[in-house]
Amino acid sequence: MTKLLDRPIGLAKRYEAVRAFSERIVAGLSAEDCMVQSMPDASPVRWHLAHSTWFFETFLLEQRPGYRVFDPAFRVLFNSYYNQVGSQFPRPQRGLISRPGLKETLAYRHYVDEQVQALLESGEATDDQALAHILESGLNHEQQHQELILTDILHAFSCNPLLPAVFDLPFAATGGASGIAGSLQYDAGLFEAGHADDVFCFDNEQPRHQVFVDGFELDRRPVSCGQFIEFINDGGYRRPDHWLSMGWDAVRQYGWEAPLYWLEREGKWFVFTLAGLAEVEPDWPVTHVSYFEADAIARWAGRRLPTEFEWERASADGSHEDCQFADSLLKERSAIHSTGQTSNKGENRLLDIFGGAWEWTSSSYAPYPGYQPPPGAMGEYNGKFMCNQYVLRGGSVATSRSHIRATYRNFFPPEARWQFSGLRLAR
Amino acid sequence: MTKLLDRPIGLAKRYEAVRAFSERIVAGLSAEDCMVQSMPDASPVRWHLAHSTWFFETFLLEQRPGYRVFDPAFRVLFNSYYNQVGSQFPRPQRGLISRPGLKETLAYRHYVDEQVQALLESGEATDDQALAHILESGLNHEQQHQELILTDILHAFSCNPLLPAVFDLPFAATGGASGIAGSLQYDAGLFEAGHADDVFCFDNEQPRHQVFVDGFELDRRPVSCGQFIEFINDGGYRRPDHWLSMGWDAVRQYGWEAPLYWLEREGKWFVFTLAGLAEVEPDWPVTHVSYFEADAIARWAGRRLPTEFEWERASADGSHEDCQFADSLLKERSAIHSTGQTSNKGENRLLDIFGGAWEWTSSSYAPYPGYQPPPGAMGEYNGKFMCNQYVLRGGSVATSRSHIRATYRNFFPPEARWQFSGLRLAR
Amino acid sequence: MTKLLDRPIGLAKRYEAVRAFSERIVAGLSAEDCMVQSMPDASPVRWHLAHSTWFFETFLLEQRPGYRVFDPAFRVLFNSYYNQVGSQFPRPQRGLISRPGLKETLAYRHYVDEQVQALLESGEATDDQALAHILESGLNHEQQHQELILTDILHAFSCNPLLPAVFDLPFAATGGASGIAGSLQYDAGLFEAGHADDVFCFDNEQPRHQVFVDGFELDRRPVSCGQFIEFINDGGYRRPDHWLSMGWDAVRQYGWEAPLYWLEREGKWFVFTLAGLAEVEPDWPVTHVSYFEADAIARWAGRRLPTEFEWERASADGSHEDCQFADSLLKERSAIHSTGQTSNKGENRLLDIFGGAWEWTSSSYAPYPGYQPPPGAMGEYNGKFMCNQYVLRGGSVATSRSHIRATYRNFFPPEARWQFSGLRLAR
Amino acid sequence: MTKLLDRPIGLAKRYEAVRAFSERIVAGLSAEDCMVQSMPDASPVRWHLAHSTWFFETFLLEQRPGYRVFDPAFRVLFNSYYNQVGSQFPRPQRGLISRPGLKETLAYRHYVDEQVQALLESGEATDDQALAHILESGLNHEQQHQELILTDILHAFSCNPLLPAVFDLPFAATGGASGIAGSLQYDAGLFEAGHADDVFCFDNEQPRHQVFVDGFELDRRPVSCGQFIEFINDGGYRRPDHWLSMGWDAVRQYGWEAPLYWLEREGKWFVFTLAGLAEVEPDWPVTHVSYFEADAIARWAGRRLPTEFEWERASADGSHEDCQFADSLLKERSAIHSTGQTSNKGENRLLDIFGGAWEWTSSSYAPYPGYQPPPGAMGEYNGKFMCNQYVLRGGSVATSRSHIRATYRNFFPPEARWQFSGLRLAR
Repeated sequence: MTKLLDRPIGLAKRYEAVRAFSERIVAGLSAEDCMVQSMPDASPVRWHLAHSTWFFETFLLEQRPGYRVFDPAFRVLFNSYYNQVGSQFPRPQRGLISRPGLKETLAYRHYVDEQVQALLESGEATDDQALAHILESGLNHEQQHQELILTDILHAFSCNPLLPAVFDLPFAATGGASGIAGSLQYDAGLFEAGHADDVFCFDNEQPRHQVFVDGFELDRRPVSCGQFIEFINDGGYRRPDHWLSMGWDAVRQYGWEAPLYWLEREGKWFVFTLAGLAEVEPDWPVTHVSYFEADAIARWAGRRLPTEFEWERASADGSHEDCQFADSLLKERSAIHSTGQTSNKGENRLLDIFGGAWEWTSSSYAPYPGYQPPPGAMGEYNGKFMCNQYVLRGGSVATSRSHIRATYRNFFPPEARWQFSGLRLAR
Repeated sequence: MTKLLDRPIGLAKRYEAVRAFSERIVAGLSAEDCMVQSMPDASPVRWHLAHSTWFFETFLLEQRPGYRVFDPAFRVLFNSYYNQVGSQFPRPQRGLISRPGLKETLAYRHYVDEQVQALLESGEATDDQALAHILESGLNHEQQHQELILTDILHAFSCNPLLPAVFDLPFAATGGASGIAGSLQYDAGLFEAGHADDVFCFDNEQPRHQVFVDGFELDRRPVSCGQFIEFINDGGYRRPDHWLSMGWDAVRQYGWEAPLYWLEREGKWFVFTLAGLAEVEPDWPVTHVSYFEADAIARWAGRRLPTEFEWERASADGSHEDCQFADSLLKERSAIHSTGQTSNKGENRLLDIFGGAWEWTSSSYAPYPGYQPPPGAMGEYNGKFMCNQYVLRGGSVATSRSHIRATYRNFFPPEARWQFSGLRLAR
Repeated sequence: MTKLLDRPIGLAKRYEAVRAFSERIVAGLSAEDCMVQSMPDASPVRWHLAHSTWFFETFLLEQRPGYRVFDPAFRVLFNSYYNQVGSQFPRPQRGLISRPGLKETLAYRHYVDEQVQALLESGEATDDQALAHILESGLNHEQQHQELILTDILHAFSCNPLLPAVFDLPFAATGGASGIAGSLQYDAGLFEAGHADDVFCFDNEQPRHQVFVDGFELDRRPVSCGQFIEFINDGGYRRPDHWLSMGWDAVRQYGWEAPLYWLEREGKWFVFTLAGLAEVEPDWPVTHVSYFEADAIARWAGRRLPTEFEWERASADGSHEDCQFADSLLKERSAIHSTGQTSNKGENRLLDIFGGAWEWTSSSYAPYPGYQPPPGAMGEYNGKFMCNQYVLRGGSVATSRSHIRATYRNFFPPEARWQFSGLRLAR
Repeated sequence: MTKLLDRPIGLAKRYEAVRAFSERIVAGLSAEDCMVQSMPDASPVRWHLAHSTWFFETFLLEQRPGYRVFDPAFRVLFNSYYNQVGSQFPRPQRGLISRPGLKETLAYRHYVDEQVQALLESGEATDDQALAHILESGLNHEQQHQELILTDILHAFSCNPLLPAVFDLPFAATGGASGIAGSLQYDAGLFEAGHADDVFCFDNEQPRHQVFVDGFELDRRPVSCGQFIEFINDGGYRRPDHWLSMGWDAVRQYGWEAPLYWLEREGKWFVFTLAGLAEVEPDWPVTHVSYFEADAIARWAGRRLPTEFEWERASADGSHEDCQFADSLLKERSAIHSTGQTSNKGENRLLDIFGGAWEWTSSSYAPYPGYQPPPGAMGEYNGKFMCNQYVLRGGSVATSRSHIRATYRNFFPPEARWQFSGLRLAR
């Protein structure tokens, strides 16, 4: 069990901050914006707002005697995939539900917030480790959905020929990091992978275990948009020998010719971002590429993707400092897009290792030796998805700073492109 | 050219009334309700509101010198299928567009309304038969979309497990017509079919032409829910010999076991209506059946569907009076659902021949001899859809009284069920 | 009931001739050729050979006391769609059945042939009109499958990149008809449509009934390949205004750019035929076009397709003489392909009205007034397919001469192209 | 480079034996049997016969000066997926090609065989290591296709409602191994995985590298049919908590209720085998289960699948001796089906570790550290498929004894069931 009580910021304050951030993200969206489901993998913003609330209601409040449920129908409507909690409304049809609307959804949030805050003020939660663990799980779960709100609304708006901007904000200036290149070397050896600290982590980061890692080399910077343009110009999307067989199938099936959201206009590349259409800067870390594209550009460059253990081992040479996180929305009042780390304190460090762009690894998402999902419905969180997905590490500009850590394992199918997903080259 | 100026109600007044009725229908809907597209055949309510406005802007206002277009992007966004006007936003993705929202859509309507009213007040329109024809076409077009708003929102709400009601209104009482049965006889002979009057009609109702119609017999009342329950109880949905081959395929593919929106609960049949879930009354005309189901129950009953010419010929023995139309929403403040004609003035008349439920005929939707679509984009209205669809006649409870007439030809693919579609038996 | 006994050729002799022709057609095919099912609409040749035999076994022999069935498993395997005879092996999987093989299938044929011949020699069949009717139905049914064998094997071979020829035979020389143009005029009037004679016909040709037909004009010759090339060169496949809405969808979905089996090589058009690849002759009647393409070229030419009643009425001005039928395979030892009528005896006649190419009409396939399918399984032959199909008239080069007549109604869905289907223009 | 010359059996003799075995397998099949393609993942037997020949022609003979190709069209027709050799005939349509037929395919085989034998007799091949390597690759490639011939024809025949037997042979008697249970223990430690010997192996088995493997326990016997019946009876296919999320989707999508080819009749389980329908023996190792089913029964049993490295490490405790291989077809004249090892020499050994049933491991198919595919088209053999597939180890009853070894990595997508795939439980 993780020691939640030792965190510097009190649980109640943290609850308030995380929940408020969700509403901050959607503040500029209309009721209609919050309703779009532009593909089965994405969900309406309103659904994310409701589902993250449902998590607290179901796993925290409903377990307390005397709790009066906000609306019994929400149990099915806002259950994502927890079979042990009951049936679920079919995922691809989430965009067809107009009621409850945004107003009622926010009322649901506030009702649950009041109940949780009352519980926290009662002191009960801090006395009860299990309860504190659920609360912390719920907050991390909400942070995951905050990132999905950002990626899903970006996809939704990309389907609108008017290409509206989600945020009317400028980008953060891109940094002094440009010009830095090179790679770092790592020796072969046994290495302890997985989460060890007694602060919160997800079950898939454990147990901590030994892995033998051969010697390898890892680039200091992620692959940039400029490198990706070279790949495109060199016929990268037209030559099957760069691609996995399934990747080449995807190129042909979907007609891929560039990363998602890239548009060519009069010889220049533009990218559709949360701040609207913008010209691609060569220095930016590339985002919105699939595992297939990440693998292909690595092959083209005579390199490869790192394994998740290589990545985890090397990540000690980077830091969260100066990296790009979703927090910038609040603090710097800047739009969310991966433009690269702004400064470089330390000579031989990895840049943009956290935040910016998620980095595809070559590792299939699998349980660590001895992995056991938690009992009950909470155990449906990670383990049952360990198939045909690949691990991404490091977080992105759409991730909250307090959410990410070196052992954090994100995962998506190899064809997924709507996340802020990029890569870093290894050898 | 039709003589529009002779209509009892002035064009300006009529414009105002028809346009206002659209907004009356949607008055109780939220911005989110107006956004749902629950299947590719249906459109969001908001899209209907915008597209019917686009019709006036494109075919009427944009032809006038000096007109300032509301938003050039709307040309593509709200074009349905007029290839000669330019490209169209893909129909199945209409539900993904959150902007322009409801508020801006209503502003678009009001802007166009003002321009049209100004034009009408200028006296120009009434002097100009061509212009008056476009205006009348636009109003009839809008009335068609009013019916689609009703059927599409009903389908949308039926996908919501909460089964919300569109209108918080009671049904109109069902009539004294119950108990009336029997059929009327018609002799063989040459008959003039199609529109002759000089008031407005759609191009597909012309030219008026001769048809030889054999002797036939037609039921005084449409098939009732009670008859349909008998068909179900007799295994109607389980015996292939009642069905067209394609119909039987549909039964198995879609798992049909009753008309659309029917639910069985504890041995009783309920139907989801615009006023919410209601118990099925045996006396009501059946609605929401496909051509396949209409054909199957006719076959089961040892009867057949009438041709559209038989129907048209017989319809002289019915009247609009006392029939159920969409107007009831305004006048009787009653919800829209087919419950049957309320009275029966006249001994040997056909009941519910207009309004109530559209009646499937056995006629494939085809051009009349000598049919010519109008030149230009307006010619894309009817002719190009004359394939693999079947003609329905008589209007429904969701049709405006001023919109329907004996020669009116509606048409849908044989598997369509989301309209208020029923049938009447012939022999 | 039809008077079968009056036919000039005795039933036994006719049985022998028709059955032998099936085996003649497939004589040059390997066991493997006879197994291909290249699309769900087509069937393996071997299946046709077995199914046409199954028809005689099921409807004729199995009704006789003491008949020993060849193999009970064949009842399901070779039933096409007769629900009243029992279940059917799924149509799209017919190509997966390797056993019974060709050898055993031919044994099945010969076994049934012996039994039928014995029955005929017993004199029983000629005394029994019902039995003779079944026999005649079976022979006409077999002739239909002979045509399908030809069209299905052509489609199958077209999928083989080696483009093998089915028949190693030359084409019949094309005729003196070239150069003939013009059209014939017909006055308006009541006309008797449908089959009247007391020789065999299918149920869908009856009852004979009155139809009012307006005045019309019909081309003396079907649309030629040369006309079709003009349509192509004029951008016919790229302009939506020529097409029905569903037709335009088909053009884009399937990427149609020319009739089926047409290939462009170095500026010349070739067509894949039963005799292999051949250069398209401008004078040939066009074949292998869908209803959509037939409708589009008519629209492009400022004309239209005739209705089936116009066609039937006009067909009296043509004759079977000198037309192209499947019989040429036996008699002229020439390959089967539509190259046009070889001579023109008679000044003002319609050419190629029978044989050559089936002619699409604008008529949806529907029952004639008073139509009743025969009782029992034989009634599943025609009526249940009367939906979303269009009528073709006149037969083709793949039809046997003795099979076709003026009242004969063939029917296919509007997107079907693998038959020898062409058209004739009306106005 | 592998030392091929040291193999006990000369290359020429081995070539002859392996090639002859392919023809032995298909000896009882008709030309039609050899043509069925019952699903896109399977290929016609005739295609396998041609493609394995194409491999020798393309990579061996065509590289020799003066070689006259058998038929240039075969380059495209029988190329599977080698993009660098040119284009390929679409895989799902292989069953549509009736020509070249079986006879010509066998002629192609014999032509190539003569050329290869001539080359071998010339002594050139044995002097030339590269050439010998290609030859050995071709033989191993052919052995893989021999296994696919067996699994593909089994699938093809399973689609025939007559359920014909491929081989008219009895099963080998099941062994004295029944009753043996228990598991073996393995300590944690660094372990060398991958191929080291200088005999032939595939590129994916290399480089040999260090892996840290935690302590584990492995069952002495694979999961039996009896255990699988228990799983079924316990509702294994109806409870989502046993399944991976994608696995549960597959259960519902495909309606899985038992392993592939299992049928329940009057309370007993039967399995369709290469020798026809047989009653399931509880003692047999289960086969024809997907990765999803393997994972689910492991979860249900409170166990897990081994990783491929655990499996490889443990396999030293088993032997090829007495295991079931495809060779039995020749030697014991017994049908091919997994019935379990016939004897157990040695107390604490793993049984059925080789042959019998392939064993799913939990390892995603991925490159070993430092893996480099060979240059050129031969490099398209393994690497490009390393995505969304899982590793199976140990070979099956359809594998040749000389083909399998401890480091051999087979791989299939997690939903594949048509191989002889089973599992062994680990903890």
